[in-house]
Amino acid sequence: MSLLVVGTVAFDAIETPFGKTDKIIGGAATYAGLAASYFTKNINLVSVVGDDFPQETIDMMNSRGINTQGLQIKQGEKTFFWSGKYHNDMNTRDTLTTDLNVLADFHPVVPESYKNCEFLMLGNLMPRIQMAVIDQLPNRPKLIVMDTMNFWMDIAMEDLLKTIAKVDVLTINDAEARQLSGEYSLVKAAQKILELGPKYLVIKKGEHGALLFNKENVFFAPALPLEDVFDPTGAGDSFAGGFIGFLAQTKDISFENMKRGIIFGSAMASFCVEKFGTESLIDLSQDEVDNRVQEFVDLVQFDISLV
Amino acid sequence: MSLLVVGTVAFDAIETPFGKTDKIIGGAATYAGLAASYFTKNINLVSVVGDDFPQETIDMMNSRGINTQGLQIKQGEKTFFWSGKYHNDMNTRDTLTTDLNVLADFHPVVPESYKNCEFLMLGNLMPRIQMAVIDQLPNRPKLIVMDTMNFWMDIAMEDLLKTIAKVDVLTINDAEARQLSGEYSLVKAAQKILELGPKYLVIKKGEHGALLFNKENVFFAPALPLEDVFDPTGAGDSFAGGFIGFLAQTKDISFENMKRGIIFGSAMASFCVEKFGTESLIDLSQDEVDNRVQEFVDLVQFDISLV
Repeated sequence: MSLLVVGTVAFDAIETPFGKTDKIIGGAATYAGLAASYFTKNINLVSVVGDDFPQETIDMMNSRGINTQGLQIKQGEKTFFWSGKYHNDMNTRDTLTTDLNVLADFHPVVPESYKNCEFLMLGNLMPRIQMAVIDQLPNRPKLIVMDTMNFWMDIAMEDLLKTIAKVDVLTINDAEARQLSGEYSLVKAAQKILELGPKYLVIKKGEHGALLFNKENVFFAPALPLEDVFDPTGAGDSFAGGFIGFLAQTKDISFENMKRGIIFGSAMASFCVEKFGTESLIDLSQDEVDNRVQEFVDLVQFDISLV
Repeated sequence: MSLLVVGTVAFDAIETPFGKTDKIIGGAATYAGLAASYFTKNINLVSVVGDDFPQETIDMMNSRGINTQGLQIKQGEKTFFWSGKYHNDMNTRDTLTTDLNVLADFHPVVPESYKNCEFLMLGNLMPRIQMAVIDQLPNRPKLIVMDTMNFWMDIAMEDLLKTIAKVDVLTINDAEARQLSGEYSLVKAAQKILELGPKYLVIKKGEHGALLFNKENVFFAPALPLEDVFDPTGAGDSFAGGFIGFLAQTKDISFENMKRGIIFGSAMASFCVEKFGTESLIDLSQDEVDNRVQEFVDLVQFDISLV
């Protein structure tokens, strides 16, 4: 069952209280694709880079089961570059540089061989680009998951709302849920956002975990308490990639299975933040993934029925 | 199995975005005692009030199984009074007034009939007063739970550390855990704090839930996502009261049972914040408590083994 991942493939330069990187590989689709690759090997990427992007990274993606036929390589242009500096609490950051480069004029093209995808992950991008991908698919995927951010709420709300109306699962953080709904209570925010079209809403709370809502139910998954959070960049994308990768693997989009997907996504996010950039997502073993998921089980399981 | 609850019994005046109260009943021991009364009826209170404190509240406590023989009533003096105003996020507040009144010269006296208590809840108070209660008990209780706050870390750290060293379970919030340990990571903070003497540490994260640590294990309980948080005052005390009340009822202080206690405590805290002051803790039915606990089960349960 094929998974189409759309989003940025980028260079990042990151500064955290633990250290500083030069240009390293980043991008929403990179994180999401790598995280998903632990669950399914039938991943198709749509994105754009410049001719400065390393072939060895593309080879690495291919070796992890990510098809890069839909990755446009623009000759004579540069890859999208973002740099940011995290504050001491690691929850907030300042953007230092955003060089759109190839992203400034990105027209996604979904290759013919991708068009029957059953699962679609729309990583954070201009909503109009996300919509353009949906419009190129002759059959609606079984499940469309969309990530976005406050920036688009500020400058492209109309396009954003049109795109949100087309998807099944929206993933945003708590501040974004409040901004989008105008409600402080996340329960009320979720009710309002589910009126916009999506059947499911995931509210990501970073170190405080994530909430999954549909109109009838709510599920909460914690973040794993870690000794050190080294670099939060890509955590949300790794979460989304693990989530949709697990759903694509299990071919089950019931609420019960989405709960499991949230846990697997949270596990991938917990790996992501333990090292700089995508480093920790490149060669995890199945045992490492299984053990990490077991840590989540152990963290929250209790049995009231024994009382 | 008797539970001794020590802490303030007070008047509060509270302002939140939802409204404003005149003097209403508050105090750590009031909240903790009421929350515990849904689990055990053998509760002994040690505290102090002035002669302005209403007899009907004392009668209400008695009717809920709270013995007030150890509640000193100082003639010609006034009850401790606190007033505060919550910010729009309900997570932060400004203290407007703190009139210590009877609390300024409080010498707790544990009545003879209380002295064989097996469970001791030390609500937030000057650490020296908490220690004075421990010192009056001829036999060490089976379990001592202690709450405290950043204020004592600022002005009475030496006394605080001496008292912490004597207890089994310390309950503090995340900012306090960071202040007490000097560590930002809550995992590292917990490791350091457990070196100070307590066998268990509960880190309360308000709307983000609570963590229970011992040296080998960690457990996370969410807070229930609520449509409205009306008044957060007393939530931590209600949590602690529900926690120790449940442990006293079940007479089981294993880590597994403490996990259940954390869930029951979280349930009591969720009731507390739904109304102003202690109002919601006065006449809950057993069904309401059971249903609320079931909401916590439903919120976090997932079954990875089905995959």
